[in-house]
Amino acid sequence: MRLQHATWQEVEAYLTRHTGIIVPIGSTEQHGPNGLVGTDAICPEAIAWALGERHDVLVAPTQNIGMAQHHLAFPGTLSLAPSTLIAVLRDTIVSLARHGFTHVFFLNGHGGNIATIKAAFAEVYTQRSLDGDDQPLNLSLYSWFSGQRGRELAASLYGDAEGNHATASEVALSWYAAGVEKSVAMSPRLAPKGSADCDADTFRRRFPDGRMGSDPSLAKVEHGKRFLETGVEDAWEAYRAFLAG
Amino acid sequence: MRLQHATWQEVEAYLTRHTGIIVPIGSTEQHGPNGLVGTDAICPEAIAWALGERHDVLVAPTQNIGMAQHHLAFPGTLSLAPSTLIAVLRDTIVSLARHGFTHVFFLNGHGGNIATIKAAFAEVYTQRSLDGDDQPLNLSLYSWFSGQRGRELAASLYGDAEGNHATASEVALSWYAAGVEKSVAMSPRLAPKGSADCDADTFRRRFPDGRMGSDPSLAKVEHGKRFLETGVEDAWEAYRAFLAG
Amino acid sequence: MRLQHATWQEVEAYLTRHTGIIVPIGSTEQHGPNGLVGTDAICPEAIAWALGERHDVLVAPTQNIGMAQHHLAFPGTLSLAPSTLIAVLRDTIVSLARHGFTHVFFLNGHGGNIATIKAAFAEVYTQRSLDGDDQPLNLSLYSWFSGQRGRELAASLYGDAEGNHATASEVALSWYAAGVEKSVAMSPRLAPKGSADCDADTFRRRFPDGRMGSDPSLAKVEHGKRFLETGVEDAWEAYRAFLAG
Amino acid sequence: MRLQHATWQEVEAYLTRHTGIIVPIGSTEQHGPNGLVGTDAICPEAIAWALGERHDVLVAPTQNIGMAQHHLAFPGTLSLAPSTLIAVLRDTIVSLARHGFTHVFFLNGHGGNIATIKAAFAEVYTQRSLDGDDQPLNLSLYSWFSGQRGRELAASLYGDAEGNHATASEVALSWYAAGVEKSVAMSPRLAPKGSADCDADTFRRRFPDGRMGSDPSLAKVEHGKRFLETGVEDAWEAYRAFLAG
Amino acid sequence: MRLQHATWQEVEAYLTRHTGIIVPIGSTEQHGPNGLVGTDAICPEAIAWALGERHDVLVAPTQNIGMAQHHLAFPGTLSLAPSTLIAVLRDTIVSLARHGFTHVFFLNGHGGNIATIKAAFAEVYTQRSLDGDDQPLNLSLYSWFSGQRGRELAASLYGDAEGNHATASEVALSWYAAGVEKSVAMSPRLAPKGSADCDADTFRRRFPDGRMGSDPSLAKVEHGKRFLETGVEDAWEAYRAFLAG
Amino acid sequence: MRLQHATWQEVEAYLTRHTGIIVPIGSTEQHGPNGLVGTDAICPEAIAWALGERHDVLVAPTQNIGMAQHHLAFPGTLSLAPSTLIAVLRDTIVSLARHGFTHVFFLNGHGGNIATIKAAFAEVYTQRSLDGDDQPLNLSLYSWFSGQRGRELAASLYGDAEGNHATASEVALSWYAAGVEKSVAMSPRLAPKGSADCDADTFRRRFPDGRMGSDPSLAKVEHGKRFLETGVEDAWEAYRAFLAG
Repeated sequence: MRLQHATWQEVEAYLTRHTGIIVPIGSTEQHGPNGLVGTDAICPEAIAWALGERHDVLVAPTQNIGMAQHHLAFPGTLSLAPSTLIAVLRDTIVSLARHGFTHVFFLNGHGGNIATIKAAFAEVYTQRSLDGDDQPLNLSLYSWFSGQRGRELAASLYGDAEGNHATASEVALSWYAAGVEKSVAMSPRLAPKGSADCDADTFRRRFPDGRMGSDPSLAKVEHGKRFLETGVEDAWEAYRAFLAG
Repeated sequence: MRLQHATWQEVEAYLTRHTGIIVPIGSTEQHGPNGLVGTDAICPEAIAWALGERHDVLVAPTQNIGMAQHHLAFPGTLSLAPSTLIAVLRDTIVSLARHGFTHVFFLNGHGGNIATIKAAFAEVYTQRSLDGDDQPLNLSLYSWFSGQRGRELAASLYGDAEGNHATASEVALSWYAAGVEKSVAMSPRLAPKGSADCDADTFRRRFPDGRMGSDPSLAKVEHGKRFLETGVEDAWEAYRAFLAG
Repeated sequence: MRLQHATWQEVEAYLTRHTGIIVPIGSTEQHGPNGLVGTDAICPEAIAWALGERHDVLVAPTQNIGMAQHHLAFPGTLSLAPSTLIAVLRDTIVSLARHGFTHVFFLNGHGGNIATIKAAFAEVYTQRSLDGDDQPLNLSLYSWFSGQRGRELAASLYGDAEGNHATASEVALSWYAAGVEKSVAMSPRLAPKGSADCDADTFRRRFPDGRMGSDPSLAKVEHGKRFLETGVEDAWEAYRAFLAG
Repeated sequence: MRLQHATWQEVEAYLTRHTGIIVPIGSTEQHGPNGLVGTDAICPEAIAWALGERHDVLVAPTQNIGMAQHHLAFPGTLSLAPSTLIAVLRDTIVSLARHGFTHVFFLNGHGGNIATIKAAFAEVYTQRSLDGDDQPLNLSLYSWFSGQRGRELAASLYGDAEGNHATASEVALSWYAAGVEKSVAMSPRLAPKGSADCDADTFRRRFPDGRMGSDPSLAKVEHGKRFLETGVEDAWEAYRAFLAG
Repeated sequence: MRLQHATWQEVEAYLTRHTGIIVPIGSTEQHGPNGLVGTDAICPEAIAWALGERHDVLVAPTQNIGMAQHHLAFPGTLSLAPSTLIAVLRDTIVSLARHGFTHVFFLNGHGGNIATIKAAFAEVYTQRSLDGDDQPLNLSLYSWFSGQRGRELAASLYGDAEGNHATASEVALSWYAAGVEKSVAMSPRLAPKGSADCDADTFRRRFPDGRMGSDPSLAKVEHGKRFLETGVEDAWEAYRAFLAG
Repeated sequence: MRLQHATWQEVEAYLTRHTGIIVPIGSTEQHGPNGLVGTDAICPEAIAWALGERHDVLVAPTQNIGMAQHHLAFPGTLSLAPSTLIAVLRDTIVSLARHGFTHVFFLNGHGGNIATIKAAFAEVYTQRSLDGDDQPLNLSLYSWFSGQRGRELAASLYGDAEGNHATASEVALSWYAAGVEKSVAMSPRLAPKGSADCDADTFRRRFPDGRMGSDPSLAKVEHGKRFLETGVEDAWEAYRAFLAG
């Protein structure tokens, strides 16, 4: 069930049987010559919606903008400062806790979000650790691209050409989910490798077309369908493990 | 064109012909017994996507969570504090300005966002007014439900039963856009009227089922199709007026 | 009774009979060639003080600086960023709530403050909506220039020359209240019209002498006396309506 | 000249002959059984206005609310958190610097403001020290009650009964300036002494009627007239010393 | 060279030959029955000071308090909220950048700091990515306990009893560096394993004596000497790799 | 006892006999040609550690970076903005209060910290004054250089050459505590006097080698030993007075 498509009374009823929720979180940032700016939001959203359809789990609306400062030298990238994203996640979590949700599972599509999401969890916990809040609150961060089934599939399809940003697997999944496809030649075929821990101009000098170590021209829409399936299985396993504590 | 579905090079090309962008902004909040929690995001998003398809205008991803503190006593409502939403909008705007966008048009679906969005504009302008930034930056806020065509249609379909929150028109549009429909009897038929300027518990006491002055049981999916058309026409007119200065 | 002129024991006694308070809020910003920089604070302060004298209602000290970023290209303008003004109003309101005030009526003199004041109310309510504070707290924003009696008087005296900023009516009222008068020829007689939603340099280009659509050379001190009377009547009506809920 | 009573063109002209300004800053807090809640704002405001009349120096509007958390257990006290007051002063100062003011002289009426005002100066300077701003900016904090003439007068009139809060001298000056007078018996005659570095409940336990070490029943309106004169002389001397560097 | 022991002129001279600096960062938090509250600061500080002595590299003063909210249910733990620690690190980094340092190497002793430090780097980079700062600035985070030599030594000495918090290796190193030793029996010998992503009360329920998976009674002072040596070698290798880009 | 060298169980035991703690706070800033950048942290830390050894009082880790914006034009200076330092001290204090500490004594080494520390106390008290926290919390700020014994010793050793920054006494004490000594000729012998209330570039113009009014070439290591003794006596007296209320 998607929260956006539910009435409040349906949410009220849901909370009597389950107090967990999945929150897709992505980014709006360049993904190389043939990757979509929305890749990192589209991928976890597609997985989350499938989970919501197949299992009786509520899916919150997607946090479409993440922490993407290093991509700001490429047109179309939007970025929240870490301090802003922390505030957004804090407000989201305390809103959910207000209603009695006890397990909030962030289904993430962007590696650059991870540190800030963890810091946001600590910001929320800090208040509770000082105030001694009694209601249980469990927060989990899971990145779809870290799932074992998906990683194996990517390795089998692309080998080393999977890369680190604008990966072949995320391009494939986002194309499938969004119903779009872009045909762009890559030059060089494999993008340079390196660190993204830098500012935007430095990043663009290191990675001129935005890719990091990948050859996403290998991506195909039909691969995307398979990544959706592995993604759903991986994420559902992670969610159940989260509930199990 | 949806920004999420574009590559950065497509955005770069777009900026050579046009420097305006539409940003849908909504809320995640109760909308009465038959209205969707996502109503306020779904409506402007549907209108914005239609604008993006019909006209060569870029549409940013939707800001799904807005300022909805007064609805927090109803399960499913998420709210950003005004100070948080101001930071989000500031970061969004300065990201866009970084790329050369000169006209940012917020297509809004929630009355409760209006004050905070305007305050966010002033926060961005304050920095420029002090620093003397040279690049032109124009910000506009337009709420789809304020369009004349849409208001006339709502008046003709529902008369006084349109109401102020969980209105018949937004319920109809969101059903059409989301492909869902809820059949719930309303009691009383017309919800009470009053002010939403209060905290969440007070709001729920005033408006027990979440509606304000409306009878959204009058909403029909086919009405939604018509509200989408009037919404697109109204918003396109407003956007062109914004560009014209 | 003015809070600044009361002892704490007089305030304590007041609270046993009434828990409402009026807070004048203005701005410090250019008001054209013959308008005072303090116009927007002087007008609501004069009305509030008259209310305090005629009725047993407490009047807090005036918030003299508001959100006036768009006027910063004119010497003498002071502006608080929206985030700052929100913090000021939050602290003011929670101080009052600490003492048991239940109705806080902001008597406003500046259109540019409205969005930020509303956002500040929502910031205060957000905390209460999350924490579930039990003490009733009602917040109201009323701009003196929106009162019906005053608007009718302005229409009868100035017609279209009333304008939108540095209006003839506010110039007249502030002159009367401050005991000053400025004789300056206006050129052009009627200032240009347009939007103030922009940064300071843009505003000054649009409105070279600071006026928006007005001819304040029509203002006379004796008009100010009449605007004070209509202002007091309008505001008192609004305050009583606020108390009545 | 009071900034509130000037036009922007008069301010523009002023800046061609002088770039200093006086900003009165006070507090809204209990001042014992016969002292006014507005004492700390009224006193520096009266002195500043007299300076503005006698000398060609511009006087900004008064910051009426200060940092008064320790008085919050007494009805009528309003307090800005230090972080809020820092933001207010920063915005005030950068607004003034935007216009070319180079010397900003805060004429203070509340001991409890001193640390926060100094911290605010450092906050403004920090940004300049990092960014290397070129325009000279000099900030000064002067508390009227620290002036030598005034202190001698208080000693001669009240001796040890002057005290530390709700002092006889400030009560006298505020009565004279505000045109009010309160006749209240003090018990005990001399209030207890002690530290105000504590929270509000602790403060009230230490100082049950709000006074600290004073007997303000000795205050007389005619004393206030004399404190105004000494205050003006002391402050003018301090202001000239500030200009002289 | 320790920055605290240098004069500013020695720093000035240093900057002509090298623009890198090491910043030790730790935490003040419980480390089980025989571990020191300062363990996480003492360990990286000892390694950093040794680096400073053996190589011509400047060492900044230690950030003694980190993000340790989950340990707040144990007496002695101090914690900065992530938002606070981000501000501290931002101010530290921009101070260093002001002087021309181009490589800032945070030598970390606390796993719980990692997310927040990375978020702080992104906060600093965000400003530069928006403003387009020209001076190169490279930031690196390295945790001493992740070094290969040290991990191998711990494995050889303690095997599985090394654990995850209050580890045998950090207890040994801190004892050696601080010149203290505590003899406390552990019960159970191996502490329970689990996640530290929770609030303080939950953490204490999961880990009653504060240890996570470790048996630090195996620690010996002489082990600490060896961990210092491996720590220095590991960190120096990491620092040189950082400089090499 | 140093908190960093204690286990949490030792802290727990300490709290059963005493609920006071000493927190050394310094700065990292230039101290003239022969003074250490760490002078202001080293001095109070040395005194605090001696207190902890001689008396049964707990000493928290040193806050090494303070508010030193005016020294930023000298290499090596690190500065926290006042707003940052307020957050650090607030988090430190609420962590301590969480454990039951009732008396927190900041032993300060830097005059430039004083205003911000006091503002931080008020920030903490503000929350308690609004929320009505019941647990007693007493905060004290004491600067070691204000102690009478130390001031007399400095006067006897250096007379007027003690100065105001990079004083002979603090140079001597820090040399003794750090075990270092610098031999640098001073020119002029006595540094210029003046105000430090300015930005960094202005400060450096006023005080070219960083000293203010001092001749620290008079400092000797053996003086430092004596300043440590007077410092310990002065601080212990102040601490006991603080406990006595």
